Amino acid sequence: MLLPRDTVRSLALVLLVVLSAPSPAAPQAGTVPSAPKITGFRAADVGPELEREAAMAAVPSADSLRRHLRILTESPSVAGTPGDRANAEYVLRRFEAYGWQARIEEVPVYLNYPKSARLELVEPSPEFLETRERGIAGDKDSFDSDAFGAFHGYAASGDVTAPVVYANYGDVDDLKKLAELGIDVRGKIVLARYGKIFRGLKVRNAERAGAAAVVIYSDPADDGFAKADAYPRGPARPSDAIQRGSVQFLSEGPGDPTTPGWPSRAGGKRLKPTEARGIPRIPSIPIAWAEAEKVLSALDGPLVPSGWQGGLPLTYHVGPGAAKLHLVTEQDYAVRPIWNVIAMIQGREAPGQWVVCGNHRDAWTYGAIDPHSGTIALLEMARAIGTLVKGGWRPRRSILLCSWDGEEYGLLGSTEWCEGHAQELTANAVAYLNVDVAVAGKDFRVNGCHALRDVLTEAMGEVTVPGTNASTFKVWRDKAWSEGKNEWARQNRERRWRGEPEQPFEMNVAPLGSGSDYTAFVDHLGVPALDLRFEGLQGSYHSIYDDFEYLDRVVDPGYAYHLGITDLWGRVALRLAEAEVLPLRYSNTGRFVLDELQSIEERIDDADAGVETDSLRLRVDLAPLRAAAAHLLDRARALESRADAALQGGAWQGGGPGPANAALIRTERALLGPGLPGREWFRHELYAPGLNTGYAPVPLPRLGQAVLDKDRRVLAQSGAPIVQALEHAASELEKAGR
Amino acid sequence: MLLPRDTVRSLALVLLVVLSAPSPAAPQAGTVPSAPKITGFRAADVGPELEREAAMAAVPSADSLRRHLRILTESPSVAGTPGDRANAEYVLRRFEAYGWQARIEEVPVYLNYPKSARLELVEPSPEFLETRERGIAGDKDSFDSDAFGAFHGYAASGDVTAPVVYANYGDVDDLKKLAELGIDVRGKIVLARYGKIFRGLKVRNAERAGAAAVVIYSDPADDGFAKADAYPRGPARPSDAIQRGSVQFLSEGPGDPTTPGWPSRAGGKRLKPTEARGIPRIPSIPIAWAEAEKVLSALDGPLVPSGWQGGLPLTYHVGPGAAKLHLVTEQDYAVRPIWNVIAMIQGREAPGQWVVCGNHRDAWTYGAIDPHSGTIALLEMARAIGTLVKGGWRPRRSILLCSWDGEEYGLLGSTEWCEGHAQELTANAVAYLNVDVAVAGKDFRVNGCHALRDVLTEAMGEVTVPGTNASTFKVWRDKAWSEGKNEWARQNRERRWRGEPEQPFEMNVAPLGSGSDYTAFVDHLGVPALDLRFEGLQGSYHSIYDDFEYLDRVVDPGYAYHLGITDLWGRVALRLAEAEVLPLRYSNTGRFVLDELQSIEERIDDADAGVETDSLRLRVDLAPLRAAAAHLLDRARALESRADAALQGGAWQGGGPGPANAALIRTERALLGPGLPGREWFRHELYAPGLNTGYAPVPLPRLGQAVLDKDRRVLAQSGAPIVQALEHAASELEKAGR
Repeated sequence: MLLPRDTVRSLALVLLVVLSAPSPAAPQAGTVPSAPKITGFRAADVGPELEREAAMAAVPSADSLRRHLRILTESPSVAGTPGDRANAEYVLRRFEAYGWQARIEEVPVYLNYPKSARLELVEPSPEFLETRERGIAGDKDSFDSDAFGAFHGYAASGDVTAPVVYANYGDVDDLKKLAELGIDVRGKIVLARYGKIFRGLKVRNAERAGAAAVVIYSDPADDGFAKADAYPRGPARPSDAIQRGSVQFLSEGPGDPTTPGWPSRAGGKRLKPTEARGIPRIPSIPIAWAEAEKVLSALDGPLVPSGWQGGLPLTYHVGPGAAKLHLVTEQDYAVRPIWNVIAMIQGREAPGQWVVCGNHRDAWTYGAIDPHSGTIALLEMARAIGTLVKGGWRPRRSILLCSWDGEEYGLLGSTEWCEGHAQELTANAVAYLNVDVAVAGKDFRVNGCHALRDVLTEAMGEVTVPGTNASTFKVWRDKAWSEGKNEWARQNRERRWRGEPEQPFEMNVAPLGSGSDYTAFVDHLGVPALDLRFEGLQGSYHSIYDDFEYLDRVVDPGYAYHLGITDLWGRVALRLAEAEVLPLRYSNTGRFVLDELQSIEERIDDADAGVETDSLRLRVDLAPLRAAAAHLLDRARALESRADAALQGGAWQGGGPGPANAALIRTERALLGPGLPGREWFRHELYAPGLNTGYAPVPLPRLGQAVLDKDRRVLAQSGAPIVQALEHAASELEKAGR
Repeated sequence: MLLPRDTVRSLALVLLVVLSAPSPAAPQAGTVPSAPKITGFRAADVGPELEREAAMAAVPSADSLRRHLRILTESPSVAGTPGDRANAEYVLRRFEAYGWQARIEEVPVYLNYPKSARLELVEPSPEFLETRERGIAGDKDSFDSDAFGAFHGYAASGDVTAPVVYANYGDVDDLKKLAELGIDVRGKIVLARYGKIFRGLKVRNAERAGAAAVVIYSDPADDGFAKADAYPRGPARPSDAIQRGSVQFLSEGPGDPTTPGWPSRAGGKRLKPTEARGIPRIPSIPIAWAEAEKVLSALDGPLVPSGWQGGLPLTYHVGPGAAKLHLVTEQDYAVRPIWNVIAMIQGREAPGQWVVCGNHRDAWTYGAIDPHSGTIALLEMARAIGTLVKGGWRPRRSILLCSWDGEEYGLLGSTEWCEGHAQELTANAVAYLNVDVAVAGKDFRVNGCHALRDVLTEAMGEVTVPGTNASTFKVWRDKAWSEGKNEWARQNRERRWRGEPEQPFEMNVAPLGSGSDYTAFVDHLGVPALDLRFEGLQGSYHSIYDDFEYLDRVVDPGYAYHLGITDLWGRVALRLAEAEVLPLRYSNTGRFVLDELQSIEERIDDADAGVETDSLRLRVDLAPLRAAAAHLLDRARALESRADAALQGGAWQGGGPGPANAALIRTERALLGPGLPGREWFRHELYAPGLNTGYAPVPLPRLGQAVLDKDRRVLAQSGAPIVQALEHAASELEKAGR
């Protein structure tokens, strides 16, 4: 995946708590009823569905997962390289053997491979810095020299000698802080640490501030010894491990930067690289902390501001002074083929309605965790569903499995595929279920579109956490409760003060930002998506140590968590493909928007604290937005009641669930608007990555981003398109089943 | 001082923001009017007072401060040692030379000196750990071997060999966490890091959990290289610097532990040491981080919980396992003389009314910062006020200057003096103004009783921050505003939701906890106090490096901040001694209590989050408390209006300000109650140190501590004594000037 999950967590957590249902607070009890109910199924169909799911869940095995992993991680598999091609063919053959119609779809994309890289500390005393890992005894793969050394996807070539300035995480606020300290980064080499924001935006921010080059290192405070024992003893990043990765300006638009908004095809229209947006003009390179330490310990200048000190045993200074670096990198750019592998089981009743599951297959080195922990789950899910199909069953709707290529460079495979299939997806896609890194630890996490919350949490009630008797749902909820109960109490207190009803503590999915292959589905096409994983400290991330030994011995020995996520992924897919009424519950979406508007109101109030000039205050009338969200909530509840009643033996007014399902499919699409300011490819009015975070979400992005930016002009115009989208969605729901 | 100030700051900040005045919000403007007003003075008297203050402020000089410091820090000056005696005589002679009546008051107290100390890592590989600093080239004092090595005041002797368990800060929650992890500390040596709570409570907590001994070290994350450059380059703690200090159970009662609640006198009543409460029974010793690193890097067992990782370049584990220590310490206990030096200028009109200024004089080593940055300010203030007196002026009331001894062991000198002068102080003390460490950096901080807020902030308006044209008040306020404006905005939002009026952003003093010599004045006798300082990272704290070179070159070269605090301290003392109506404004106290009750209500609500059994919820009716606080506020405002009117030319109904001043003096005393549960020596119903923090305040301690402890029984009984105290104070104010 494009980013380490645990950096997303802290932001997501803030947004994850407290959505409501009209039941009284019962914080210690789960909301999953003891007699399973499955939204969208008749009571009589629940038993057979659970039997089918049990049969499916019985198929995947630890042995089989492990065998897939050993094969997939035998060689490095950067997008478009022979190792990647070999894996594409392995995946294709597995899909076919498991009973799926499958094919490889080649996509020509513009991307770089590293030709050479050299980084030298020239002052205060000359020393070459390492641009490759050393390898660790007992892990033979880590010594393989086929892997690319230190480089960034979409990096510029260059030759720069300059003093160094340390810029913390290199985000917009960090560069502002440097300016306040009187530190001029123009012409300097910016040394930034990984974390907090997408790495491409670190380069973008430095470039816009006039820096000559960027060096990004992994600080031990973020994913090294300060967090856990380093590999091989534990999962944390070793001193020599280098985080490769893309430096595309992801939040401004993913996919092949030379085909923005349209599919990359052989001989098709393509921008000149110099016209392409979102590719850095200044060179950059990643390094390990053992090398960064040599630079940081030589740095002079002011003491770093509060929060900038990392985990190395030295006092961090911002520079410039004493340390000077010489960076030479040469990139080999070309249009090269990459390979999506697409498999399908045709639905028996509505084959045009697609439930799409996807995971990427390209890696920066071996990709044992990223992405092959997901690939092996995908393959075992394919085998499990294939077993049902071989037994004579077919789902009501079609299921697609996608093994994406080029995700690491900037979601290339999935974005180009979505752009190429925009029409079918827009018309009929039910949902997209993404798994990137399936397992990097033991904490279940989900980001997604809120309409999919119920189908997810119900399925989680059926999947047991390894080593316990508790369901994934219960463990997930109990942890969130222990971390979030004070915030929940505070919010209810505030509701009481405002004269609003209290809300029970309820789990919800966290909104989606970006950083994996759901992006084009949700943000560009309005297909509702989920992104599932078991998280943990992923210290091998994008390094040579992301290999078989690391996953097999350190992360998930026994593969129990892999079996868990395979089970969950399959159940959600099956329910979406089989439900009589689609389990897309837009009441969850409506409640999310209402809560988010409350939060935005408070952020505006915070931003205006002490601003006395009225014309300088952030002004937006949230009342029409609240009314539109309440209208959506109301329409969704009405449809949900009608559907539940019909499934309990009542009748559809229109004769069947067809119109309701069609409306539910259209509803997420109705939430698309004219495109966000300055990045029109992003069209969803509820979900987007922050323009300056790259992965962390900024919900109601038109409004939320304007508040972050304190942009009064954009803010003033941001209400109407959101109201329009919400009303459009409400009207779709209203049409259904009347 | 007993504790490093910057650990207090984080807690104090939370409590410092947003008290109110009935004016509209004007966040960028100061509240000090451009034409100075001095509360308690007639308009005609303001000019002469300011001239007098200017004359006083012109006296102190950097040269003189520096000379005092060089003399006071020539030798180590632990309480009762020859170096301490020599300093007492120096201070006495200075006071006398400056025109004060002065004397040394000897107090016999029970305390320990170290006889021997040995600490050995016996497993995994034997190695003696250092119990002395090495010294740093260029700082000759740091090589002096007269100083005591590693030891703790009131430590037990002992000989223990045991495996090690790392316990983070060693607070109550940390030990609970260890138990949850299944780690048994019984019979083990607990290794805790300094910080967060008073060190004596670390030993108390470990002892109560069954530990055999305690080793406390200074982690670089807390005051070492992770915070700033280490000495000699900067102010942070070097690798070998040892924090000595007392391990008395301070929050249960300070002073000589063998004379709890009564003065220590030669031949007087005294408990046997074995009967004395508040002295550890298990041995303990402090070490430097370079030594602790050898232990921590050998520790096995589970990974530490979140937040326990320190700043050393290793992954922290809790143990036990691998590391085993052997500790042998021998303490030499005896009743020994210590020496308070007390100086006085008799007041011209009300000599029985005392304005008391104090600072301690004993140190753990040289005490350049702690306490002599305060001692040199005290001496220069004495010289400055003495100059006015030599010019023929005398203050309306008496001014006392106190150079306390034995503060470091547990506030011995000041506590025994207060216990011995309880009657005079109760009857007539106006206020106590404490300066312990005067200058350890550039951030002005104050803790105090809220009645003294106005006299302080008005005086701050007259004192310029070194190197700027801005007043101390403005700089203090601007920093608090930039850190606290979002919290202020949130609180006002909540007030709006509750239908209460918004409040402007106003500075207030943070409430007092403990850790310096104001404790007996406030908590035992109800004398209102302030504790003033310029704060900063104090990495030499209680080590051999707290010497002349450290202050003179690193902390305040030029002594400008020392001049600033001397000026401020003197102005506040002069105004209290000279004001026609005492500037004790209990409206500030009333508002503080109302805000604190709001905060307590919210903490109760948090604590009850998810508690469904009604009998398990924390129950207390805050309405009578709110009514009593509102009543106090109302009575105070009425008296303040009457006083202001009388000073503007009106007349006192009783003929003069005498009854008002007498009532104002009685008001803080009226806030004393029957003593806090389990620690009856602490009698103030508004202010006390937390029972488990030792220094950080827990306001409305009877109530606040019960909420922290979730003690429903104590909570149920906590309202009535507070109501009674508030009503008593209100009635005192009501009597005044009717």
